[in-house]
Amino acid sequence: MSLPARLTGVIPPVCTPLTPDGDVDTGSLIRLVDHLTGAGVDALFVLGSTSEVAFLTDAQRRTVVRTVTGHVAGAIPVLAGAIDMTTPRVAEHARAALAAGADAVVATAPFYTRTHPAEIDRHFRLLAAATGAPVLAYDLPGSVHSKLGADLVLGLAGDGVLAGLKDSSGDQGTLREVIAARVPGFSVLTGSELLVDTALLMGADGVVPGLGNVDPHGYVRLVRHCAAGEWDRARAEQERLCALFGIVDAGSPARMGRGSAGIGAFKAALRLRGVIDHATTAPPQIPLSEGETDDVAKRLTAAGLL
Amino acid sequence: MSLPARLTGVIPPVCTPLTPDGDVDTGSLIRLVDHLTGAGVDALFVLGSTSEVAFLTDAQRRTVVRTVTGHVAGAIPVLAGAIDMTTPRVAEHARAALAAGADAVVATAPFYTRTHPAEIDRHFRLLAAATGAPVLAYDLPGSVHSKLGADLVLGLAGDGVLAGLKDSSGDQGTLREVIAARVPGFSVLTGSELLVDTALLMGADGVVPGLGNVDPHGYVRLVRHCAAGEWDRARAEQERLCALFGIVDAGSPARMGRGSAGIGAFKAALRLRGVIDHATTAPPQIPLSEGETDDVAKRLTAAGLL
Amino acid sequence: MSLPARLTGVIPPVCTPLTPDGDVDTGSLIRLVDHLTGAGVDALFVLGSTSEVAFLTDAQRRTVVRTVTGHVAGAIPVLAGAIDMTTPRVAEHARAALAAGADAVVATAPFYTRTHPAEIDRHFRLLAAATGAPVLAYDLPGSVHSKLGADLVLGLAGDGVLAGLKDSSGDQGTLREVIAARVPGFSVLTGSELLVDTALLMGADGVVPGLGNVDPHGYVRLVRHCAAGEWDRARAEQERLCALFGIVDAGSPARMGRGSAGIGAFKAALRLRGVIDHATTAPPQIPLSEGETDDVAKRLTAAGLL
Amino acid sequence: MSLPARLTGVIPPVCTPLTPDGDVDTGSLIRLVDHLTGAGVDALFVLGSTSEVAFLTDAQRRTVVRTVTGHVAGAIPVLAGAIDMTTPRVAEHARAALAAGADAVVATAPFYTRTHPAEIDRHFRLLAAATGAPVLAYDLPGSVHSKLGADLVLGLAGDGVLAGLKDSSGDQGTLREVIAARVPGFSVLTGSELLVDTALLMGADGVVPGLGNVDPHGYVRLVRHCAAGEWDRARAEQERLCALFGIVDAGSPARMGRGSAGIGAFKAALRLRGVIDHATTAPPQIPLSEGETDDVAKRLTAAGLL
Repeated sequence: MSLPARLTGVIPPVCTPLTPDGDVDTGSLIRLVDHLTGAGVDALFVLGSTSEVAFLTDAQRRTVVRTVTGHVAGAIPVLAGAIDMTTPRVAEHARAALAAGADAVVATAPFYTRTHPAEIDRHFRLLAAATGAPVLAYDLPGSVHSKLGADLVLGLAGDGVLAGLKDSSGDQGTLREVIAARVPGFSVLTGSELLVDTALLMGADGVVPGLGNVDPHGYVRLVRHCAAGEWDRARAEQERLCALFGIVDAGSPARMGRGSAGIGAFKAALRLRGVIDHATTAPPQIPLSEGETDDVAKRLTAAGLL
Repeated sequence: MSLPARLTGVIPPVCTPLTPDGDVDTGSLIRLVDHLTGAGVDALFVLGSTSEVAFLTDAQRRTVVRTVTGHVAGAIPVLAGAIDMTTPRVAEHARAALAAGADAVVATAPFYTRTHPAEIDRHFRLLAAATGAPVLAYDLPGSVHSKLGADLVLGLAGDGVLAGLKDSSGDQGTLREVIAARVPGFSVLTGSELLVDTALLMGADGVVPGLGNVDPHGYVRLVRHCAAGEWDRARAEQERLCALFGIVDAGSPARMGRGSAGIGAFKAALRLRGVIDHATTAPPQIPLSEGETDDVAKRLTAAGLL
Repeated sequence: MSLPARLTGVIPPVCTPLTPDGDVDTGSLIRLVDHLTGAGVDALFVLGSTSEVAFLTDAQRRTVVRTVTGHVAGAIPVLAGAIDMTTPRVAEHARAALAAGADAVVATAPFYTRTHPAEIDRHFRLLAAATGAPVLAYDLPGSVHSKLGADLVLGLAGDGVLAGLKDSSGDQGTLREVIAARVPGFSVLTGSELLVDTALLMGADGVVPGLGNVDPHGYVRLVRHCAAGEWDRARAEQERLCALFGIVDAGSPARMGRGSAGIGAFKAALRLRGVIDHATTAPPQIPLSEGETDDVAKRLTAAGLL
Repeated sequence: MSLPARLTGVIPPVCTPLTPDGDVDTGSLIRLVDHLTGAGVDALFVLGSTSEVAFLTDAQRRTVVRTVTGHVAGAIPVLAGAIDMTTPRVAEHARAALAAGADAVVATAPFYTRTHPAEIDRHFRLLAAATGAPVLAYDLPGSVHSKLGADLVLGLAGDGVLAGLKDSSGDQGTLREVIAARVPGFSVLTGSELLVDTALLMGADGVVPGLGNVDPHGYVRLVRHCAAGEWDRARAEQERLCALFGIVDAGSPARMGRGSAGIGAFKAALRLRGVIDHATTAPPQIPLSEGETDDVAKRLTAAGLL
């Protein structure tokens, strides 16, 4: 499927189920895709941060894209992350993802290097030229350690270089500035799963919620309440999802990083709900303990998901 | 060549010359290696940050290691960076570099992900197990956004997981703590090219100076003065090199990042000195202007290198 | 006036007009207070960051509180910032402000020192005990370099230590968590003047908008639209105010800090609108140039304020 | 005493002993001064970070300066910190310290505010003009959150605005650049107590070691070894002091900030050595536990100081 004029709605970043040996568990991945599409999501985003893209080898990345695009078979768009340090390496991932069937690619600013805004601008222009496919910018300062400014994004959007923005910066003021410019055909998606109602109130087009792996129905309902202008119902649904998001605090910060805790909780929840076979995360992440997994289970039960 | 019991001396991070089209310029690379070995350096470090490793594709990385190890033919050790986001991806680079002839690999902590010290510890242990070759830790918080603590490094050193540390953190207090522990067989190298005399006074084993591409003779002299306890002569040589390091300020910070300015200056100097054919840097870096290159030339002349 | 059960609505942080010699311009300050109360604001916050509290001597701080509380004479509550590095110094400012007539004090976490959450908790408990007056926590990581966590704030709120939170952190996820807990009698105010509609949608009690000095009527309208559930009209008003906020970009970032540009723009706008006599800011801030002030004037005209 | 042409040698930042009630313990302060001068230090620095200046009220600051200058009676120079957020407030502290007998003042860049280098430059020029006394710049990015650049410092030094620099930034490259310029009459002091030999090797004039409260004799010996070019003996003494510095790790990072642990350890050591009466630190700092104090005692014993 090619992209719609403008991406909208719920676009979960799809977790990458792994076998205990660390291989991509394609059977579980297909069941997860069915879990998401069955809930009515509008598109899928594979190879994002929540997908553990930073931990997957090139071969594993290809497997993920082929498995998902093959199974979805054009029913909804599939976006793929092309996550690497600089333009030449990102371009290779982008070409591989497109060759494997992705409809669009999502790329961050360069990282590891010390980057100037002019270099970020050049990076996205070169990427768009190299891929010939829709490119969305992924603003993720927590990983990339630079923030995409509104002027930069709007310049690239206005020139047709970017098809959209996935904003996981947490900076709602800049997000608002980008939205308020209302560039035709440019899709603004928030990655802040706790702020969906407020982002849609501002005029955002959609959401890329990591927690949407666990409760896609909740996010679909939330977005529909917003579209209907039923802001009180939206807030109630959002607050329910915020409480559910507490699963990411199950993993002890004394023992593991916030990445291990977050992705570990999502995978534990998916296994507990019977969607995937194993909660395995990629090394060097630290797995949740049995007690921490029990804590996830309790929160799922409280949220009516178990 | 296998590694000596302990790496010491001058180990420059070798720039990666590129053709105007962005390919690895192997002819220039070989001349650069000759320029360095001719000055008497003790080992070579390819695929480091100064080598633009973040910008090189996997194929280009292989070309670099094969070219250099093939040319050096065991005369001195060749270390190779295995720079990527997490353990599975770093392990693949490490295996490729070793297969292409490298004697040891150099790896950072995970980046892009949100990492806990326990995960960094696990990362290096898994890497050492996966490669079966000497692994040096590369402490580079400016790129990696986490700092390797002295306890972490010394624990890994004491357990024989790490063969050494390349410290580019700028944190001389932690460097001192690692040096003072004097772990047998563990090599402590500073990447701070402006602080070589002081690092060696503290007891560091050697230096990995980016500026050593431009003036390897200077660094070889500097290390010899230190070894001889001629600290006044060492300081004078170090101050001369500090002044030469001013070439990295030629590129305007209003137009480019500090990476573009630094690597651009090293490559401009190498071209001006006739060592390499082109000063091309990889995209999306911004090239030095003609005027900025003239400024590099003036500083080379002042330093007696042109 | 003592505080209402819960502070709500528009509570502007009052600019501190200065004479060209740097003294507090009490005549202009009184006119500014009339400008704000005439627009229907619900309370006043003096000695906040927008008030240049960091630049005012103790004597000037006292003059500000006395002038404003004397003029307001209990018609609406007056909150006063007690901004200093640690508990003993903050407590002195708090006592002085209360003695000068303030109804409540607003304090940040300790800064300059390297602080642990347990010390921040202790800080607010000691302050509340020392002052015997309502204390609001001021979350301003951009100045204080630590973030107040939701657990910390809610613990202090639940124990009756804090009467409210002024959140200028920009972290809307944590703000939502604090709001969603709905602690009785605890007032949650946002300092993010570009995100008022979304904060009120989440359930915030009010807003402390620096830009409210320039256009208090706009913020009063905005809060009324939100209270009425007229979210489309609220968004339109908020976007108008976001555009007006562009005045803070008039001052060149090449010449001055963002503080100089922001406060300089507010004061230039107040002078252009005839509210205060001088746009003088305290040293070492850099004043706006004539051309930059013209730029402010153009934006005021575009917003219908001149 | 007026300042010597150039400050040199060991200039400890004097701890401020407190009574259990939080008052300045002037008897202990005088014994501490005798402990330091008896060891042969070259000058004293009161009201620095190690002196808990951030926690002392204005009255307490005055008491400290009067007590120390009165007791020293001109035998050696007394520098006083004038630590506050911006120029007008710093100038008031500076005038008070000079009136109380200080020979020079030490000031940081503005903090809490968002500052531009041009504003920092203006800040020091205004301060020098306002005080008419020697002003030293205090570079402490850990507290102030901006770094003084070499160009800025050297510009102010060259214009006679600054009499010296106290560098506690940890950035030895910039320190080297400032030293290498060798501005006549400008004193460069390092605050990095673990890097004294290397700073003196580079050409620094002296050291301001917090740990010098505990072991002033060690620092005096260290500086004498350096002056004599006995670098091996200097290194041995420095490594001994580095080991002693481990006392700052006695306080648990799970319970307290690094400030509480550091100052708490210095004060515990001074009490254990019989120099001061109480180890009390100012609120909201967390005191060391009995067990943590025992740990300090063990390290003092190991260092031959108990």
